[in-house]
Amino acid sequence: MKLAIDAMGGDNAPEQIILGVNRALKQIPELELLVFGDEQKIRTYLDVNSRVEVIHAPDVILGTDEPVRAVRRKKESSLVMMASAIANNEASACVSAGNTGALMAAGLFIVSRIDGIERPALAPTLPTIDGRGFVLLDAGANSDAKREHLLQYAIMGSVYAEKVRGIDNPRVGLLNIGTEEKKGNDLTKAAFTLLSEANDLNFIGNIESRDLLNGVADVVVTDGFTGNMVLKTIEGTALSVFSMLKTALTSSTKSKVGAVLLKDELRKLKNKMDYTEYGGAGLFGLKASVIKAHGSSDANAFFHAIEQAYKMAKSNVPAIIEKQISSGKEDSK
Amino acid sequence: MKLAIDAMGGDNAPEQIILGVNRALKQIPELELLVFGDEQKIRTYLDVNSRVEVIHAPDVILGTDEPVRAVRRKKESSLVMMASAIANNEASACVSAGNTGALMAAGLFIVSRIDGIERPALAPTLPTIDGRGFVLLDAGANSDAKREHLLQYAIMGSVYAEKVRGIDNPRVGLLNIGTEEKKGNDLTKAAFTLLSEANDLNFIGNIESRDLLNGVADVVVTDGFTGNMVLKTIEGTALSVFSMLKTALTSSTKSKVGAVLLKDELRKLKNKMDYTEYGGAGLFGLKASVIKAHGSSDANAFFHAIEQAYKMAKSNVPAIIEKQISSGKEDSK
Repeated sequence: MKLAIDAMGGDNAPEQIILGVNRALKQIPELELLVFGDEQKIRTYLDVNSRVEVIHAPDVILGTDEPVRAVRRKKESSLVMMASAIANNEASACVSAGNTGALMAAGLFIVSRIDGIERPALAPTLPTIDGRGFVLLDAGANSDAKREHLLQYAIMGSVYAEKVRGIDNPRVGLLNIGTEEKKGNDLTKAAFTLLSEANDLNFIGNIESRDLLNGVADVVVTDGFTGNMVLKTIEGTALSVFSMLKTALTSSTKSKVGAVLLKDELRKLKNKMDYTEYGGAGLFGLKASVIKAHGSSDANAFFHAIEQAYKMAKSNVPAIIEKQISSGKEDSK
Repeated sequence: MKLAIDAMGGDNAPEQIILGVNRALKQIPELELLVFGDEQKIRTYLDVNSRVEVIHAPDVILGTDEPVRAVRRKKESSLVMMASAIANNEASACVSAGNTGALMAAGLFIVSRIDGIERPALAPTLPTIDGRGFVLLDAGANSDAKREHLLQYAIMGSVYAEKVRGIDNPRVGLLNIGTEEKKGNDLTKAAFTLLSEANDLNFIGNIESRDLLNGVADVVVTDGFTGNMVLKTIEGTALSVFSMLKTALTSSTKSKVGAVLLKDELRKLKNKMDYTEYGGAGLFGLKASVIKAHGSSDANAFFHAIEQAYKMAKSNVPAIIEKQISSGKEDSK
């Protein structure tokens, strides 16, 4: 199983990316990697291994680059060369911690969509209190969505939850502002009907954003605007509470002593909220698995993203999605 | 200044509602109240005071009632009688902790809209780390919105922030999934242009949900679907983090000792996140000020909601909104 890696994307590239690569090669015996980027820098950190090939990419897409233009113009960037390796059948899946918009554009223009998929979706896995986690899609690949797109998101999310996350008959929830059938905006009302009628989908109805971290569903379906909004609200609120907690823990000698006694428990708590353990965000609906690792990925986070891409490729997620989408079309004829 | 109160709405009615009423009468010398509900029960808790009149309402709208139907049929409910007191000019503002949908319906059908306002908005004030807080609107009065509605929300929120919350030249932010001008969905892109061109509005551009609790704006404008979603996500995430924290604090003898040392600081932290201090959610765009107190309001929360309604009525918020909306129309002619 050969994967393509963008070594130059993210805040800690290439060092942490390559340390993640080293770990992946050690832990997954079947894995082979094509690593794209500044060859000299990559070699500084890369362990010698016969299962990895370094391909020099003279250019880099920056976080500040305008995505579509960057993908069109920077043909020799590590990100574009990585995506081209997929298009040329040199690798089965790819991982980048770089510019999200550019990765989506490269996915769309170079890797290309599965036949029948109208819009690819960005699908991160978020933590829940019980540690089970849930897949949220679309988290921002497309701001506006139609009800048919939400149905496709539900199918793609279910395949991923079952095949990669090992969840039997995953519960699909429609993110809404109330649980009753008639709640919501025009889009959610229309999508509710469509999801209810779909075969082979364990649709549990509307779910509310306040219940997300309690693990109310395994797959959470929404338009990209709402999904991105909710994702950032969860992040922002958790960070704000932790920052206030930190201030509280250091405000007096007494509270500092208390903080020392609680150190282990608080670390466990923070780890529970750490979604890098779940890998990166998948770009679903493309002909091959494309994983966006978090921009601030360290070696551990990047390792999990590689592991996730490996599992997706190994279990043929894109092929299964393609089959389900086309059989859904047959059903509705 | 005379206000109308629904004594029967919310989880702790009428006891906590009336205890809030007692406190308001004590602290605001100018205040007069009409209190609607079960007279016998109300008298059990009500302090003797010449500035309060109890009007018996034989019926109650329940949290489970279908809002529009309940308002149409339960004419002798405390909520409908309270709203009618506004329509009959017997009171200048009203407060209820009851069924949100029913209060919105009563606002629309009985209190009625300000001329020129197309859609009233539900506007809670949320806490920020610095204690300043921000007004969010619309938090769910209307699921779908047009760009003109968002402009009206911005005007109404600004008037409220300035006149009631005492914020000079309040910063208005458009809630979006990126800060750049061209980011977002069709609605936010269209609203951005409209808000940029508006006079008498301190529009600071797009803001992201992850920055909300950092106090990035004083007035946050969005459609009711997104507003409700974000509100519930903040609530749900904060509650989840606190619940995990509670588990962590009681997991061992060592952490229990730590928790005792941190008790005061953690209570302060929880109070900081307690938005009942900011009053209830205003229903903006109606001919009189209508306040929705939180359903779980205790005496303290309900007192703050009364105080808020009093301030809104005293500073003539609905009249100022009406003037600004009509002058905006003149400008655009």
